[in-house]
Amino acid sequence: MKFSVSSKDTRSAARCGVLSTSHGDIPTPIFMPVGTRASVKSVEPAELKELDVRIILANTYHLYLKPGNDILFRAGGIHRFMNWDRPLLTDSGGYQVYSLSELRKISEDGVTFKSHLDGSRLHFTPENVVDTQRIIGSDIMMPLDECPPWPAEKGYVRKSGELTIRWAERARNHFAATTPHYGYEQFQFGITQGGTYDDLRAHSSRALVDLDFDGYAVGGLAVGEPAEEMYRMLELSNTLLPESKPRYLMGVGTPANILNAIERGIDMFDCVIPTREGRNGRVYTRSGTMNLRAARFADDFSPIDEGFDNHVCRNYSRAYIRHLLNVGEILGMKLCTLHNISFYLWLTSTARQHIQAGTFTDWKEAFLTEFTRNDKA
Amino acid sequence: MKFSVSSKDTRSAARCGVLSTSHGDIPTPIFMPVGTRASVKSVEPAELKELDVRIILANTYHLYLKPGNDILFRAGGIHRFMNWDRPLLTDSGGYQVYSLSELRKISEDGVTFKSHLDGSRLHFTPENVVDTQRIIGSDIMMPLDECPPWPAEKGYVRKSGELTIRWAERARNHFAATTPHYGYEQFQFGITQGGTYDDLRAHSSRALVDLDFDGYAVGGLAVGEPAEEMYRMLELSNTLLPESKPRYLMGVGTPANILNAIERGIDMFDCVIPTREGRNGRVYTRSGTMNLRAARFADDFSPIDEGFDNHVCRNYSRAYIRHLLNVGEILGMKLCTLHNISFYLWLTSTARQHIQAGTFTDWKEAFLTEFTRNDKA
Repeated sequence: MKFSVSSKDTRSAARCGVLSTSHGDIPTPIFMPVGTRASVKSVEPAELKELDVRIILANTYHLYLKPGNDILFRAGGIHRFMNWDRPLLTDSGGYQVYSLSELRKISEDGVTFKSHLDGSRLHFTPENVVDTQRIIGSDIMMPLDECPPWPAEKGYVRKSGELTIRWAERARNHFAATTPHYGYEQFQFGITQGGTYDDLRAHSSRALVDLDFDGYAVGGLAVGEPAEEMYRMLELSNTLLPESKPRYLMGVGTPANILNAIERGIDMFDCVIPTREGRNGRVYTRSGTMNLRAARFADDFSPIDEGFDNHVCRNYSRAYIRHLLNVGEILGMKLCTLHNISFYLWLTSTARQHIQAGTFTDWKEAFLTEFTRNDKA
Repeated sequence: MKFSVSSKDTRSAARCGVLSTSHGDIPTPIFMPVGTRASVKSVEPAELKELDVRIILANTYHLYLKPGNDILFRAGGIHRFMNWDRPLLTDSGGYQVYSLSELRKISEDGVTFKSHLDGSRLHFTPENVVDTQRIIGSDIMMPLDECPPWPAEKGYVRKSGELTIRWAERARNHFAATTPHYGYEQFQFGITQGGTYDDLRAHSSRALVDLDFDGYAVGGLAVGEPAEEMYRMLELSNTLLPESKPRYLMGVGTPANILNAIERGIDMFDCVIPTREGRNGRVYTRSGTMNLRAARFADDFSPIDEGFDNHVCRNYSRAYIRHLLNVGEILGMKLCTLHNISFYLWLTSTARQHIQAGTFTDWKEAFLTEFTRNDKA
């Protein structure tokens, strides 16, 4: 995988670069909208391109259930299936090992799920998760891992981390032993674990680095631990992960989380916050968030964020979107989703510009001061 | 109102023309998508323009409830409120007199509704319905009328028809006594009633024509009567309504209904069928309709209608849309809605081309044969 770091911040670990895939280049830092089931909820793939989304996420567990490998293979992979010709990354189902903990059983071989849809039994192994992602045809695939909850006993996190390392090795070997189905290259990232225990995180990171993945995700964070613990783990990871490879913080987060993680050397982010909150009417502005369902927006004919240049702010008022949300029109959810995706992309691309200009930390402080001071929540 | 008939079919009463409004010209015959609450469900106004929608509908009763006249007035009218700069027509609430018959009481003065939202009392009169539509700022407004059910006793239809005529006169007078709020011209159509009784329909039509409205809707049809009864009323209306004014068949209908009505001299149509059925997964093709939820489309990677040149057919397969509908993704409803609107617009614009070319009735027969023979329902 070609990843080149083009600028490094002198006052922090922030960096920017370009990640090259067969479906195009991705400038980093980058935010990746979540399209779990081959759809970023309510938004067309063509509209994502208009927003200049560079890469989206989909989920192996959910796609395996529906539409299933047979359909995806016969479609020629997910890009053709959903008509998305830019890069796409798939999570492995490892998050579902955490989020569906009542419905799964872990063994040395892998994970057995009871399907959340119909109760049927699914067995995921490090190898068949690679096979499924070969069929999905994601540009970047993730290996099966176990994400422990927080807090968790050190003994459990150690044991779980060792299992994830053994699974990572099996996944890496199986990746090397298989080839893409659709004529373009695929890449595989490793996922470090270790919870918030420094020694375990360091051990996991070193073991994963030894397996020479194409990039590294810092996993097992954003599961309820204090933000400061997460940041400490990122600082540690920054000293352990190779500078020459992309770094991905899974499932994060708020604008503050993202900027603080960029400052600590992270390049890639995904999170359901902008899309999920958008569907609930919560929108992001440079001076904080607000819920457009509130009655005070009924006669507010200004755009969501005055002077913010995106499709939604150029075309629709708070009052109109509030009306749509208030009467339950689907379009209200969609406009808030579009706006929030646009805001998150603006956040990472503006961070990138400031890293290049050498003004990242000052900008970050100024942005967060304004963003949190006037929070309209 | 400027309406010019540019071509007349020699073998039927079909005609085509252009209706001019301050928000642009409307080629007729035309289909008008329904945007009851200032939103064609799931579709952005900007996307409607991309589909070349020329005029949309909204509903006075629903808009009066939410967002209400105060918000609409302060927004500068519905066009600015929803960012739609093409023509818009508002129904009067007359349809709700029919559809919410359990919740309303009719008197000489007007109609009192119990709001379907919160039970509050609303009094609609021929005059205040004009006032509300002045505030909405629709290009074409409809007067308050009573739409009797079908079947209904002749005595009731006569009495109801007389009331509608008296209301029409009051509405026309009030329209003449008031002026637009937003600097562009508004027009007012009359609505004929009389059920399927020839003499009552003729009487209503003549009385409405005497009031010199800008156009005429044939009302009180598509409420359960056999299609042949409806067509007979259209043939009668064709002899009674002035040739020089546009004719609108409210709430109709299927492709066959629309083509048969065009053949009988109708220029304008609105109907929830393409949007409502689209949200349920039913889509229109030149060889019939089909429900994309069906399992047989799971691995059908062809477009909805092979060779039909619209955004949805160019970009998405039946299998992808079926997957979206199957997992409950909003995008599935939207893509079916977009496709069906596009199909209905194609239907009326193709009818127009064939009227101009002198080939309307042959094309109509051929289209309907193909459309009904292969119906995949």
